[in-house]
Amino acid sequence: MLKHVLFEGAELRMLEVRHAEAIYELVDRNREHLREWLMFVDLYKSADDALAFIQIARDQFASNQGTHYGIFYRGEFAGAIGYHKIDWNNRMTSIGYWLGKEFTGLGLMSAATRALVDQAIYEYGLNRVEIRVATSNLKSQAIPERLGFTKEGVVRQSEWMHDRFLDHQMYSMLASEWKDR
Amino acid sequence: MLKHVLFEGAELRMLEVRHAEAIYELVDRNREHLREWLMFVDLYKSADDALAFIQIARDQFASNQGTHYGIFYRGEFAGAIGYHKIDWNNRMTSIGYWLGKEFTGLGLMSAATRALVDQAIYEYGLNRVEIRVATSNLKSQAIPERLGFTKEGVVRQSEWMHDRFLDHQMYSMLASEWKDR
Amino acid sequence: MLKHVLFEGAELRMLEVRHAEAIYELVDRNREHLREWLMFVDLYKSADDALAFIQIARDQFASNQGTHYGIFYRGEFAGAIGYHKIDWNNRMTSIGYWLGKEFTGLGLMSAATRALVDQAIYEYGLNRVEIRVATSNLKSQAIPERLGFTKEGVVRQSEWMHDRFLDHQMYSMLASEWKDR
Amino acid sequence: MLKHVLFEGAELRMLEVRHAEAIYELVDRNREHLREWLMFVDLYKSADDALAFIQIARDQFASNQGTHYGIFYRGEFAGAIGYHKIDWNNRMTSIGYWLGKEFTGLGLMSAATRALVDQAIYEYGLNRVEIRVATSNLKSQAIPERLGFTKEGVVRQSEWMHDRFLDHQMYSMLASEWKDR
Amino acid sequence: MLKHVLFEGAELRMLEVRHAEAIYELVDRNREHLREWLMFVDLYKSADDALAFIQIARDQFASNQGTHYGIFYRGEFAGAIGYHKIDWNNRMTSIGYWLGKEFTGLGLMSAATRALVDQAIYEYGLNRVEIRVATSNLKSQAIPERLGFTKEGVVRQSEWMHDRFLDHQMYSMLASEWKDR
Amino acid sequence: MLKHVLFEGAELRMLEVRHAEAIYELVDRNREHLREWLMFVDLYKSADDALAFIQIARDQFASNQGTHYGIFYRGEFAGAIGYHKIDWNNRMTSIGYWLGKEFTGLGLMSAATRALVDQAIYEYGLNRVEIRVATSNLKSQAIPERLGFTKEGVVRQSEWMHDRFLDHQMYSMLASEWKDR
Repeated sequence: MLKHVLFEGAELRMLEVRHAEAIYELVDRNREHLREWLMFVDLYKSADDALAFIQIARDQFASNQGTHYGIFYRGEFAGAIGYHKIDWNNRMTSIGYWLGKEFTGLGLMSAATRALVDQAIYEYGLNRVEIRVATSNLKSQAIPERLGFTKEGVVRQSEWMHDRFLDHQMYSMLASEWKDR
Repeated sequence: MLKHVLFEGAELRMLEVRHAEAIYELVDRNREHLREWLMFVDLYKSADDALAFIQIARDQFASNQGTHYGIFYRGEFAGAIGYHKIDWNNRMTSIGYWLGKEFTGLGLMSAATRALVDQAIYEYGLNRVEIRVATSNLKSQAIPERLGFTKEGVVRQSEWMHDRFLDHQMYSMLASEWKDR
Repeated sequence: MLKHVLFEGAELRMLEVRHAEAIYELVDRNREHLREWLMFVDLYKSADDALAFIQIARDQFASNQGTHYGIFYRGEFAGAIGYHKIDWNNRMTSIGYWLGKEFTGLGLMSAATRALVDQAIYEYGLNRVEIRVATSNLKSQAIPERLGFTKEGVVRQSEWMHDRFLDHQMYSMLASEWKDR
Repeated sequence: MLKHVLFEGAELRMLEVRHAEAIYELVDRNREHLREWLMFVDLYKSADDALAFIQIARDQFASNQGTHYGIFYRGEFAGAIGYHKIDWNNRMTSIGYWLGKEFTGLGLMSAATRALVDQAIYEYGLNRVEIRVATSNLKSQAIPERLGFTKEGVVRQSEWMHDRFLDHQMYSMLASEWKDR
Repeated sequence: MLKHVLFEGAELRMLEVRHAEAIYELVDRNREHLREWLMFVDLYKSADDALAFIQIARDQFASNQGTHYGIFYRGEFAGAIGYHKIDWNNRMTSIGYWLGKEFTGLGLMSAATRALVDQAIYEYGLNRVEIRVATSNLKSQAIPERLGFTKEGVVRQSEWMHDRFLDHQMYSMLASEWKDR
Repeated sequence: MLKHVLFEGAELRMLEVRHAEAIYELVDRNREHLREWLMFVDLYKSADDALAFIQIARDQFASNQGTHYGIFYRGEFAGAIGYHKIDWNNRMTSIGYWLGKEFTGLGLMSAATRALVDQAIYEYGLNRVEIRVATSNLKSQAIPERLGFTKEGVVRQSEWMHDRFLDHQMYSMLASEWKDR
């Protein structure tokens, strides 16, 4: 029922139990596309795995640690975006996202990320938003760069991906910068 | 960020920690108005009590038992509406609501209730939605009556209210009826 | 060790782990008889399912929400009766019960129900006791009627039973009425 | 409602929330009498402390570790008796008990202890029942001696009592012995 | 990283997840040797069972109930020793231990037990340390006897071992005695 | 009992309940010294706060997330060092530490940090160890620099300290680098 309209036909919604099937199907159709940067893909065996993801997102919301949202395009589940958690003491969070291949190129991710930065800074009053992207994932780096995030350095070997460690480019946006754009 | 627009200027939103102060203030301004039908009003001593209510609503959401939403009018917290819980085995729920006095007469409650019945039946796939109203609370009975709910009988002495038991009028809407309107 | 004597040879007892086998066997012998009005029967695959029921009854007792008792006739497990939960704020509970076919016609259910209403009103100080019976279950309706419960109305489609919704007749007994009999 | 009749006028009952006041009052009247052998007496400040004891007894029951019972004499709370816990692997338990001074000399404790040994051995199928009594507490030693328990030795300094350690006489009853009496 | 040196080449260490494989292998090599006095041996099917034991030891530590340590000899896991729990109210604990056959005769158990009695009395400030040994397990009785423990009596049929109950010799050491050696 | 000797007179130990008083006293004596870089100092009101810290360290150990150790110098509590948590999926952790002023200049922190990196890489098999130090805290930066950590960049405004955000220098050590020193 609740939604945030990103643009005509594109919405963010809370993840609910009834979305499990659609999430699983998207992941299943996009195994090749998604597994390059996402470890969880190989673990998805059925809609129950999507259900576990939904539950994590809901528990995260209940414990005031942000949440993960579903991105819907023309009524279809297109991907997910969320805060990994919120560090209230230091007023800081980080954002992660993924899209099914058939939903790329529509501007969904930029719009969704902009919405989450807005929420983090204006609604939650946070001071710092991080996005960490594998140095080899140029497409994904385009999102923070387009939004004006600052590159802070390379966090070496910070994520295990199937058979190797990935280096992460650390991007950040400060509240003062976001408000000054 | 997420919202459901009831009509121009009127929205439902998930309850979040940052709403505690506004909820407390509304309750505090409306003690006389609200306590006639709501036991919790006398227990509200500070924004912490509103925080506890918010937490319950969030835990309810996390455990797939529905939730309580904030009703906002022109950006202000106006009241709350929610499912008491969801009985998934029997595909049934019940709805409760309250508004600050200054927000009555605007059609908020009818619109919000209609939205929750829609969600219950179309999104959650429930079969039966109950509304129980004190037999002496004629204003509140107007909501289910306007929406075409059926009166099923009087549940005698079913709620303790400060110093006496209230009888409840039991109203219900079945999915088949709602879809046939 | 503890028991409540209903009449010569008939007793209520707390459910304990050692009763699991007997409960399962009764249910298993009475599948046809019980499944007409009880969803759980089809889920009973072994004594472990009875054990889960016992655990629920014990947890319910530990959390001061009433409990379910075993009904024993001449030392044999004959059926169960219990409070679904206790609403202490509104001083209200509801009662449910079932018997193996071979133990019907002995007056066990009337006596057991009377005992639980007594306990609810005199020991727990409750004000309202509900019994909800499927409108089509005439035998079961005889219990509240014999005990002088009041019919309040029909709660439509309020229980899913295998392949259809059942309507429930709502019966209630108020403390003032029970004491005045 | 449920009870075990020890003898005319004397009963064991499950401890319930409504007994808290009576338990507290008995303890409060018997501070001098009880504190000689019971550490908890000095910690009793209000009926809430009795409530905590009741909750422990109920949780113990729910987790299949035995329970503590109220001993009632002519309708009044007279004392308590219970299993400390049940060691199901080794089929063993131990029993503890206390009575208000005004209820001593009536045979309540012998009868109650006999009932609990019966339950332990015949209902729970346990093999060994222990009673540990301070070597200086001759009155309390009379119970296991009268019931035919065997003295196994002195467990030195095994209980802290206000300002000194008490030695315990270890008594035991085996199932084979109990059945052979 | 942390260790307690018993003597050259012999150490106690906290149990950690990485020790599971070594524990399982020792148990597996010593099934005949260990099962005479230890029920758990027959339950060990894989390193997961050792992992469960490690988790119990760690949870015990976290809840301030003592812990179980690994005994290592020349870098190899040789056996385990630990407190069963700590009774802080009565300042009392008991010690249990086992060794792989290939590590017996080296003085590991005496040294380890001495270390745990030291810790119990000097670091934890306990007053009484128990060791319970099957009356038929003469080798294991040698440990408390060598350390000067006092025999208090025989706790009859106090442990179920595969197909029979074992009697336990109860040994104890008081703080005053240990300090006076 | 267990310890890791850093050098003559200097040891790491598990934190136990009995250390609470000493931890509180060190913090209390060093309020001025410690509060410059540690938020928690102002929250320390009594030994209970040290107890809470100890409990966190023990729970962390029990859940296989590393732990915090006490640093002891000549038998006195000198400070603490620990892993913030362990990310087992990505085989990564980070280290934090603090010392009482009277214990600085003795080489405790370098030695302790070296020990924790050793444990992380050789015992836990981790691949990356981070140390984050405020850019303005030159003394603390000396530790990772002396140990050969790599500077990866400045994480801007990543810690709230009383009245301002601190920037953090991100240092890291990879397992391959540590083994090649």
